[in-house]
Amino acid sequence: MATDLTLRPFFWRATNLFPEKEVVSRTHQGQTRYTYGEFGERVRRLASALEALGVESGDRVGTLGWNHHRHFEAYYAAPLMGAQLHTVNLLLHDDHVEHIVTDAADDVLLVDPDAVDTVERLWDAFDSVEAVVVMGDEDAVPDSDSDSDADLPIYGYESLLDDHDPVDSWPGVDEDAPAGMCYTSGTTGKPKGVEYTQKMIYSHAMMAATPAAQNVDEDDVVMPVVPMFHVNAWEFPYTVTLAGAKPVFPGPSPDSEDLVRLIEEEGVTLTAGVPTVWIDLLDYLDEHGGDLSSLERIIVGGSAAPRQVMRRFEDEYGVKMEHAWGMTETMSIGSMSRPKSTMDLDGDGESYEVRSKQGLLSPGLEMKVVDDDGEEVPWDGESFGELYVRGPTVVDEYFERPEANETDFEDDEGGRWLKTGDVVTVDENGYIEIVDRAKDVIKSGGEWISSIELENELMGHEDVVEAAVVSVSHERWQERPLACVVRKEGTDVDAEDLREFLADDYPKWWLPDNVLFIEEVPKTATGKFDKKQLREDIEDPDLPYTPGE
Amino acid sequence: MATDLTLRPFFWRATNLFPEKEVVSRTHQGQTRYTYGEFGERVRRLASALEALGVESGDRVGTLGWNHHRHFEAYYAAPLMGAQLHTVNLLLHDDHVEHIVTDAADDVLLVDPDAVDTVERLWDAFDSVEAVVVMGDEDAVPDSDSDSDADLPIYGYESLLDDHDPVDSWPGVDEDAPAGMCYTSGTTGKPKGVEYTQKMIYSHAMMAATPAAQNVDEDDVVMPVVPMFHVNAWEFPYTVTLAGAKPVFPGPSPDSEDLVRLIEEEGVTLTAGVPTVWIDLLDYLDEHGGDLSSLERIIVGGSAAPRQVMRRFEDEYGVKMEHAWGMTETMSIGSMSRPKSTMDLDGDGESYEVRSKQGLLSPGLEMKVVDDDGEEVPWDGESFGELYVRGPTVVDEYFERPEANETDFEDDEGGRWLKTGDVVTVDENGYIEIVDRAKDVIKSGGEWISSIELENELMGHEDVVEAAVVSVSHERWQERPLACVVRKEGTDVDAEDLREFLADDYPKWWLPDNVLFIEEVPKTATGKFDKKQLREDIEDPDLPYTPGE
Repeated sequence: MATDLTLRPFFWRATNLFPEKEVVSRTHQGQTRYTYGEFGERVRRLASALEALGVESGDRVGTLGWNHHRHFEAYYAAPLMGAQLHTVNLLLHDDHVEHIVTDAADDVLLVDPDAVDTVERLWDAFDSVEAVVVMGDEDAVPDSDSDSDADLPIYGYESLLDDHDPVDSWPGVDEDAPAGMCYTSGTTGKPKGVEYTQKMIYSHAMMAATPAAQNVDEDDVVMPVVPMFHVNAWEFPYTVTLAGAKPVFPGPSPDSEDLVRLIEEEGVTLTAGVPTVWIDLLDYLDEHGGDLSSLERIIVGGSAAPRQVMRRFEDEYGVKMEHAWGMTETMSIGSMSRPKSTMDLDGDGESYEVRSKQGLLSPGLEMKVVDDDGEEVPWDGESFGELYVRGPTVVDEYFERPEANETDFEDDEGGRWLKTGDVVTVDENGYIEIVDRAKDVIKSGGEWISSIELENELMGHEDVVEAAVVSVSHERWQERPLACVVRKEGTDVDAEDLREFLADDYPKWWLPDNVLFIEEVPKTATGKFDKKQLREDIEDPDLPYTPGE
Repeated sequence: MATDLTLRPFFWRATNLFPEKEVVSRTHQGQTRYTYGEFGERVRRLASALEALGVESGDRVGTLGWNHHRHFEAYYAAPLMGAQLHTVNLLLHDDHVEHIVTDAADDVLLVDPDAVDTVERLWDAFDSVEAVVVMGDEDAVPDSDSDSDADLPIYGYESLLDDHDPVDSWPGVDEDAPAGMCYTSGTTGKPKGVEYTQKMIYSHAMMAATPAAQNVDEDDVVMPVVPMFHVNAWEFPYTVTLAGAKPVFPGPSPDSEDLVRLIEEEGVTLTAGVPTVWIDLLDYLDEHGGDLSSLERIIVGGSAAPRQVMRRFEDEYGVKMEHAWGMTETMSIGSMSRPKSTMDLDGDGESYEVRSKQGLLSPGLEMKVVDDDGEEVPWDGESFGELYVRGPTVVDEYFERPEANETDFEDDEGGRWLKTGDVVTVDENGYIEIVDRAKDVIKSGGEWISSIELENELMGHEDVVEAAVVSVSHERWQERPLACVVRKEGTDVDAEDLREFLADDYPKWWLPDNVLFIEEVPKTATGKFDKKQLREDIEDPDLPYTPGE
């Protein structure tokens, strides 16, 4: 019955119903502005060019790129021609990039000028890759007679587009054809790939556009700061298109100045990214000022934004921060936290408490929270368990990872659950709150201690910049918490101060057995605390305190 | 890949995340108010009861019911158990009801108290039906030893629910399983059935919830006046559930007083229905007054609302009327008309002009407009053609109607087009405007005359209540327009007056060759002008005027 769920109608809608609407893009060479009409023409040329480079239906087009219009064009050209867009994180170390490109066996790579070096270094390992296209102006393409050892079959994006006529029409593509691919950030083991079919992207983008999720309308001006190599930039390239909204792509490694300028100049109404971006932005605004009057909402994901930051954006700039939760495996957005209209929240404290959670599961999904014995835990805001989710926008396998596919999923008659690895509570109102990653939770004497809860509390201390809490092994209690804290410059808060600070709100046995003061918490390429690295770094710490004392 | 697209997560979301949210329902016996939590329990009991009545996966559960909570329960119970909900229009004449129930071979019927008579009259023809359940309180169920000839296996809805425990879990249901069924209103020939799969309803409801379409959010209070026997009540029973919005069901044949009371008492923010409902409501408000302050939007479909009515709602009550277009074959909403943010509309006249059109095609769909030779017509706001649409929410066949399936669809490499039968123009901005039904368009001397345009213009005359324009055969010009007009009581406007009135805006050859003054325009069961009947009624009219004079 009915037509397949593919990306073609999204492209159709933006290019036919909103051909005059602007697409804005900051690039390596400056700022570009064109219309959805021109976008459509360039997508058709790109498809034609990729075809000439040998890309066929079913092939993989890898990208190493920032958020800009050329990358946006690839988001459509590859899937519309029946190929698969594989976005690779260009911030990863060489060995991860090598693993990801060779594991996926990409056929063609579209890379930003600042990723050409990476490709040249790794070229010998890239057996599957038949062509490399540099997503920049012509002067960004290395000379073929450069002194580089690698003899790359390298092309300039713009001359490829100039040389090829737009395709006339799109082939019929099956809704189950893989259209996207992404690798998990991989804080444990090697990054694992997941594939998104046409149907999954269609379904997720439509869901993401609803008021319950991103709530993207035609009059929105949307600036995705979340990188396009990161879970389809939380689907914004697709939601803006289906909605006919104006996208603003902030380009290569945008800093706070770039972001403020784009908000001011383009009238951005909605933006999205991880908390650090917005913390930095506040600092910038404190120093330089800026006009955020057009901005209505910031969607925050990846990790939780400090409550103080949410408050400041709202009180000082009239901008609502909205918490979202999601994973590569859920195609980004899987929950959003907004108070329900039926809630009787007295004062804004309660409102922030609700909004600081990960929120209500998005439409189209189902969830359950299970303890170590596989039993569902009650929704009481206290009982911990691992979050399981399923739905048409949740992957049901990793790419060629039979072991992970055994351990990370569970079937029942209603379908396949993804075990998210997030340890959560759910309150009486159905709001999810992540208390830990399953692998980071501390099990002390049979009881769980949430490392994330301790971290958030510590980061609420005025002299603390960053805090990460990890488990260290303990003869009697199996595991005990250790806090690693970055002090604010010029302050001298000590371990006992912080233990006392925590003692107001937590039982004694939750208090860290020591606090190490460090220069910086190591981070993954996506900006999350890298606790695996941290645990390696600290190895055998001194534990002067004992639980309960 | 991933879980199938079924209705289960919508049910999960409303009953688990919004168990405290109210569901309000006006019934034959008074007003009911309960929560989504109780709704969930009752849906599970209904599924259990239907199972006991022999309903299996794949069976059809027919309904003859108004908009109330029991009907809403059936909207979920049947599909969740893998059966198919077949909504039958209880306002149809017996022969149509008989055709529809026997054509679909419904297994069980859920009927409103005021439809029991219909079922008794037609019982002998209903070979497939094994049980009849009366959707009312117990006193609405006829005695089994009544003097009726028909010995119906008849059950009371409430006692069935009391007698059956809720089902524990839902079976896995395939996304391609038929979940809904509806018959076209059938102004030509016998009503034709269309089937909606789980996947189609999931996709359409998600699309309908987006800001580009119905824009339903959690804090909305939604009153679908459009009947639940009419294209899934434009999907509102599903969009409210997935959004967690509060539904208000206005019950059996609600009048304006009922609607105003429900808006006032329940704080309705969004309602939807055909134009006549809102015209009547304005009359009621003029006479009795009423408080519409909670109401933000009225979505209007079925036919176009007069511009004067749109203006009055907006100017006097602050309520926005939004035009939607859709068909049984497109699962309702297929376009919505709101001005684009990029439009520079000077004064509200231009805004109303845009908003009076059928608007922009909804996300997920594609369209083209073709002339008699199958060539696409330009988007110039003037060129006419038949609207073709396709997408995952457009049916690609009629139920067991091989001839219609030959004529009403057209395949190309991108999928199957539905020929809508609507003759439209599309303007430079992509806004669709219906100028006629293909079968009603008047072809005079090789030129098209839009009957709808003439009707709308005539209905703008102060002394005209209703106007329908039909073609009559003409020796020289093949077809000529004839206007059938209902005069306002106590006025004596005549044919020459109306021709002069039209002459201001239309070429002479568009002017009707006569105007017949009639008591009422015959209507179909869904309230549309029944031009087939009208043409039969007038047969051989006098034509005193000739084109061009």
